[in-house]
Amino acid sequence: MSYLSNCWYMAAWADEVENGGLLARKLLDQPIVLFRDEQGELGALYDRCPHRFAPLSKGQVANGGLTCGYHGLAFDRNGTCAHNPHGPILRNLSVRQYPVVEAHRAIWIWMGDPALAEPGSIRDLSFLVSAPETAFSKGYLHGQGHYLLYVDNILDLTHVDYLHATTLGSGAFTRTRAQVSETDGHIRVRRDCLNEIPSPLMRSIRGITEADRVDYWNTVEWSAPAVMTLSGANVPAGEARDGPHNNMNTMNVHIMTPETSRTTHYFFASTRDFAVDDAAFNARFAETRNNIFSTEDEPMIQAQQQRMGDADFWDLQPQLLRIDEPSVRVRRKLAQMIKAEAEREQTCHQVEQSAGAPER
Amino acid sequence: MSYLSNCWYMAAWADEVENGGLLARKLLDQPIVLFRDEQGELGALYDRCPHRFAPLSKGQVANGGLTCGYHGLAFDRNGTCAHNPHGPILRNLSVRQYPVVEAHRAIWIWMGDPALAEPGSIRDLSFLVSAPETAFSKGYLHGQGHYLLYVDNILDLTHVDYLHATTLGSGAFTRTRAQVSETDGHIRVRRDCLNEIPSPLMRSIRGITEADRVDYWNTVEWSAPAVMTLSGANVPAGEARDGPHNNMNTMNVHIMTPETSRTTHYFFASTRDFAVDDAAFNARFAETRNNIFSTEDEPMIQAQQQRMGDADFWDLQPQLLRIDEPSVRVRRKLAQMIKAEAEREQTCHQVEQSAGAPER
Amino acid sequence: MSYLSNCWYMAAWADEVENGGLLARKLLDQPIVLFRDEQGELGALYDRCPHRFAPLSKGQVANGGLTCGYHGLAFDRNGTCAHNPHGPILRNLSVRQYPVVEAHRAIWIWMGDPALAEPGSIRDLSFLVSAPETAFSKGYLHGQGHYLLYVDNILDLTHVDYLHATTLGSGAFTRTRAQVSETDGHIRVRRDCLNEIPSPLMRSIRGITEADRVDYWNTVEWSAPAVMTLSGANVPAGEARDGPHNNMNTMNVHIMTPETSRTTHYFFASTRDFAVDDAAFNARFAETRNNIFSTEDEPMIQAQQQRMGDADFWDLQPQLLRIDEPSVRVRRKLAQMIKAEAEREQTCHQVEQSAGAPER
Repeated sequence: MSYLSNCWYMAAWADEVENGGLLARKLLDQPIVLFRDEQGELGALYDRCPHRFAPLSKGQVANGGLTCGYHGLAFDRNGTCAHNPHGPILRNLSVRQYPVVEAHRAIWIWMGDPALAEPGSIRDLSFLVSAPETAFSKGYLHGQGHYLLYVDNILDLTHVDYLHATTLGSGAFTRTRAQVSETDGHIRVRRDCLNEIPSPLMRSIRGITEADRVDYWNTVEWSAPAVMTLSGANVPAGEARDGPHNNMNTMNVHIMTPETSRTTHYFFASTRDFAVDDAAFNARFAETRNNIFSTEDEPMIQAQQQRMGDADFWDLQPQLLRIDEPSVRVRRKLAQMIKAEAEREQTCHQVEQSAGAPER
Repeated sequence: MSYLSNCWYMAAWADEVENGGLLARKLLDQPIVLFRDEQGELGALYDRCPHRFAPLSKGQVANGGLTCGYHGLAFDRNGTCAHNPHGPILRNLSVRQYPVVEAHRAIWIWMGDPALAEPGSIRDLSFLVSAPETAFSKGYLHGQGHYLLYVDNILDLTHVDYLHATTLGSGAFTRTRAQVSETDGHIRVRRDCLNEIPSPLMRSIRGITEADRVDYWNTVEWSAPAVMTLSGANVPAGEARDGPHNNMNTMNVHIMTPETSRTTHYFFASTRDFAVDDAAFNARFAETRNNIFSTEDEPMIQAQQQRMGDADFWDLQPQLLRIDEPSVRVRRKLAQMIKAEAEREQTCHQVEQSAGAPER
Repeated sequence: MSYLSNCWYMAAWADEVENGGLLARKLLDQPIVLFRDEQGELGALYDRCPHRFAPLSKGQVANGGLTCGYHGLAFDRNGTCAHNPHGPILRNLSVRQYPVVEAHRAIWIWMGDPALAEPGSIRDLSFLVSAPETAFSKGYLHGQGHYLLYVDNILDLTHVDYLHATTLGSGAFTRTRAQVSETDGHIRVRRDCLNEIPSPLMRSIRGITEADRVDYWNTVEWSAPAVMTLSGANVPAGEARDGPHNNMNTMNVHIMTPETSRTTHYFFASTRDFAVDDAAFNARFAETRNNIFSTEDEPMIQAQQQRMGDADFWDLQPQLLRIDEPSVRVRRKLAQMIKAEAEREQTCHQVEQSAGAPER
């Protein structure tokens, strides 16, 4: 399956690129250089000088653009050559630029047709910005698996009961059937786990035992290409969800961007509405999460990818279960969107040709 | 050359899989998980969950089978799904099982048609079991070469005179022509080295000098796919082989199992009839052997493989010498057996079809 | 682009192969073993025993040839089997030999038709030999890029102004147009930088400031396949080039030999006519050069290669500038020479056939 092009991919956390700095990152198999000028304005270019193919990321940010470190050609953020110390600026001395936007603590890039890039279509994740620093933490994982394996991981939280049995799992996700729905292209997976065994982590935070019972709610919401929110809430069993003991709401993001067909940039962040001023708790919370992702999820997904090799997911004939419903819907939706893109491109091409436009 | 299927391959030493434990190992390019239940009963499954392709080896042994560590599906040692926590057990929720048998301190696996698996056809290596612990040692080497290069190494012991000149070689193997014979599919290579120079190791153990002479006998016996015994005996020159000074008999195994077309699981073990209670001697003996294998044989075979690349042995037109006779016979025999297997499968297939059986 | 065959490639520095020693090195994708007998006489053979494909480089030098370390076959420097301890010497027991010559502190190898190998066609680099040891230094870099990227690097010294701005560059190379000429197949790139800013290194050695002005001259001369000299001279601005203050002449070589299509053996050396007895200066000079090559040039060229992947240089449509003139001329010249070789071989083949000679 190829990638969806005309959508915003998260390229980096905003603070990964400082003013006057740059970041080389491969996205959807393409080498990209992200950079900021001294005023903080962002740019994104194909990371290869058109002259002799040195990566522009091995150069410097200067005059609002990038200067190649090998022979000194400079390009502005539109990819136009702004300076050639060795002669005139020829028309072909340009490099592909990508629309890039900073929003919600992240840098978003548009890998498709720039004419279609609409910053307003970036998903609203403003809760990441409004959260106090002591109730916010984020991370990045360079995943060694196809990005949809990471998406599957979040869409099917029953894995928590097995892979994270000592921290997040109590069997509740397995016992509670997920409700899957779709609104405006967002696929939502909701679980209401009522009168359930608290997870080890919940017990530790609430100071309760395995014998106590809790009600908890959990909703994952996916939108294309792979931007997911995960909200969780819990109360002692039977209490009102909006009552005084619902003091354990978390709101998280899990965002995956393909690096290659077998590797993923996995960005995640958490906010919460309890212990919001507790920096030490915040740090422990982040450490626990990072530890779970890197020592439990990541090795499992790597191992899955190794067993799948370069085969297509469907060609391997997965024996799907009820719990795969969200994952299958997301994969189908993405496939439809990718197909629609290809058809649209085909149509544009035909229109151009019949209008006598030069072939691309 | 493809692999022989309908035969027993050594998969592991018996003690590599403890009760309640498992071992992931690739055999003949297939990922396999070996496991034992708490009672010690063995199982072997294709190491990939049919659901989402997680390796079963990343799960746990439970209830005589394996539970997948990602979503909790359980499989018994027949590969049948024994438990699906997420719904009914569908017919396709099964995984390939392999016949597996413990014998002679080793675990043997049948990679071909399970209906043909006959434990009685495992070669008798019971001397490995009857040897006292202080006269037994074993090892394993993850070889970076085609398994037949390791087989060649043992079938043609003249290499000892060059590669192991400081320990095992004295030129005697080169000077003594091997007698090659075949009985019941076993290919035997025998050398009677009479009135010969003792090897450095022989001198050290017997307390003799290079000027002394010894008679020694050496027999390698190969059976398919790559199970070899190597027996050695020596006496002061002219003495009776069954006389009182023949106190240096060793009996060894060299067993190779293909991991991939370029890597090998090489299992080896030694027993002897001298210094049988001497644990310190036993340890030194093992250390010397392991050292020779890993610092002399393995680098040479790796280097051979690198020079051969992915080419077929015969396509490279090896300039064969008299000393290659055993190796050529083994390669031809294996090629015949593999061809016979392919023809047999072809015939079965035709019979099934003419009988109106569904195509596989 | 394939390699030029009928020419001398530098295989090693002469002191990389000691008397009685050997060196395994891949050249033009072929594994080669270089060796010397006890008297220092050189040999070069294809590094693979024709018997079982062990590298001959894992054996020993003996009797003016090489003995295979696996089964003891010996080959002389003509590639003929000189000893087979296991039977008669059969006609096919031979290995390809390569003409090899020691000259100018280097070992040169002829990878094409041995009948055409003419030691007189090795480029005269005798200044490497006549330089005193305290005014000579050399190095080797195992480059991770196509050899022509290393050639480009020297042919276009404007890169110095950007990549080596803190040591060798002052902008002078960019400001001064190169004069490119060709004589007898040698392509010469000359720059006369008059009244120019001295480079940081020049300032440090001459004890002058950035405000001072110098005249300097720089000539690179390439000959096939990739043998380059680089001469430099400088004087205080306006003084005579042959006057008393021209005390900073250097004469250097940059020689590249393809290892594979993406890796290079890069040999370099420097001589000078100032501070010729100063061993400490000599060591600092070498260290600075080696440091620049390994921490500035090599990472840039590696990065170029990564961006180019396995694509052909021209297929990537480089946007060439005026500064690429020498590089383009060299690439065209090499392409012509390679084409001429292919045509010559074609013609020879036809002549042989029409003369009734056996097909090769």
